[in-house]
Amino acid sequence: MTEDLSARLSDLDLSNRLADAARDAILPYFRQAGLPSQNKDNSGFDPVTAADRAAELAMRNLLSQHRPEDGIWGEEFGRTPGESGREWVIDPIDGTRAFICGAPTWGVLIALSDASGPILGVIDQPYTRERFIGGPGVAEMTGPAGRITLATRRVTDLSEAVLFSTFPEVGSTEELAGFEAVSKAVRLTRFGMDCYAYALLAAGHVDLVIEAGLNAYDIQAPIAVIEAAGGIVTDWRGRPAHMGGRVLAASNADLHQAALTLLGNTPDT
Amino acid sequence: MTEDLSARLSDLDLSNRLADAARDAILPYFRQAGLPSQNKDNSGFDPVTAADRAAELAMRNLLSQHRPEDGIWGEEFGRTPGESGREWVIDPIDGTRAFICGAPTWGVLIALSDASGPILGVIDQPYTRERFIGGPGVAEMTGPAGRITLATRRVTDLSEAVLFSTFPEVGSTEELAGFEAVSKAVRLTRFGMDCYAYALLAAGHVDLVIEAGLNAYDIQAPIAVIEAAGGIVTDWRGRPAHMGGRVLAASNADLHQAALTLLGNTPDT
Repeated sequence: MTEDLSARLSDLDLSNRLADAARDAILPYFRQAGLPSQNKDNSGFDPVTAADRAAELAMRNLLSQHRPEDGIWGEEFGRTPGESGREWVIDPIDGTRAFICGAPTWGVLIALSDASGPILGVIDQPYTRERFIGGPGVAEMTGPAGRITLATRRVTDLSEAVLFSTFPEVGSTEELAGFEAVSKAVRLTRFGMDCYAYALLAAGHVDLVIEAGLNAYDIQAPIAVIEAAGGIVTDWRGRPAHMGGRVLAASNADLHQAALTLLGNTPDT
Repeated sequence: MTEDLSARLSDLDLSNRLADAARDAILPYFRQAGLPSQNKDNSGFDPVTAADRAAELAMRNLLSQHRPEDGIWGEEFGRTPGESGREWVIDPIDGTRAFICGAPTWGVLIALSDASGPILGVIDQPYTRERFIGGPGVAEMTGPAGRITLATRRVTDLSEAVLFSTFPEVGSTEELAGFEAVSKAVRLTRFGMDCYAYALLAAGHVDLVIEAGLNAYDIQAPIAVIEAAGGIVTDWRGRPAHMGGRVLAASNADLHQAALTLLGNTPDT
């Protein structure tokens, strides 16, 4: 398809185009691994890797057309420097284990960052057709229930909060202890949602997400979406989290401070 | 709506009608609890209970029209005896904690049972519009990817298997030990899917689901769906599981036997 490059797409429109391209690239591979015909294939073909790469290449192709001056940092093909001071930080499939299991909790993560950190983010779930976007002047999701404004919850007491993490192991022994201190204080702890947990936090259904050992491309899009929806994302000492590591996402400042008090004594690695 | 009762609906058609009615009753409540306007409501209104009851009443209404001779066993309104020897065993929202968190892993469970146990089952996820049905001559799902035949996986070695359970706590200390023996032997363990894990097993994406402390209405529909897809569901000693308790669902007989060997020493409660 020939693109009309005379009209510059907005960052928001381009983000949607990137997510559309990733969706089209990935969906043909989702839930194909478990089929009997594929089980007999011992050639080493790995559907999740194939989907990951196809999606990142599709997004890199669009970026090279529309933003040749920007850098790209992708989970599959690494970091390509730019000249604008802006960088697109993308993870084509966040939650590869969920993808392998057929669970619709993986997502496409797209962030646009400048020197200050992520300024625009997309969390897209291709199979359920849900897209969560946050950035300057935008905080919304689209999906089966239509278009909904994203806004985090106002629950301020840990004893009423819902906490998510992807794995009960969380991280190191010290990290697990920090996580469990918060887990004991909240109303409900659930596991297994991958990046979908951050989307649910932005949409006002979950109060806290705590994880460790993240990469920059795992968290930059969630940061932009959650901040646009009124939430806060830092590391476990209240510092910027956009380079990854230990992440605390909270629906509001009071809850963030309460969790930080319990996590803040975790020794640095 | 006036029903034409002169033409008797098949059990399969009626099951679909029941699932449609539950879907319509529940969806208006899903993801409403976290909205700021509802948080200010201290009247004790509980969206999940309201949805649960509305859905069970809608299904009971249909059953009273189309199968007045059959019994009903519902999670919300208990057991209503019938005269036919057949019973509809229904859980309008299995996975209320997932429902509260906005996660689309809860489901509507509908089973038709006779003296031999469940003979027809539906697992429906209203938000993603996925429906998994298993019974005499039918094993299929419908959803965003169209109509797909359900068939369990042929992985027979525990070291290649994917295991699901809803909570890492699983049950008692003895039950946790049994679960962990299997968890250590498999390739991947994931948590948090509720009844959706049984649907993924029937669809060939997951190999084992192990849980404890279930009720009859939590497991009868999954049993019918999984058995129609080629899998096996028993308790942890290989006995029938349709009255609930400890459940082992496996994609095939070899894997079932391997897991049973590790679980079978768990003392009875």
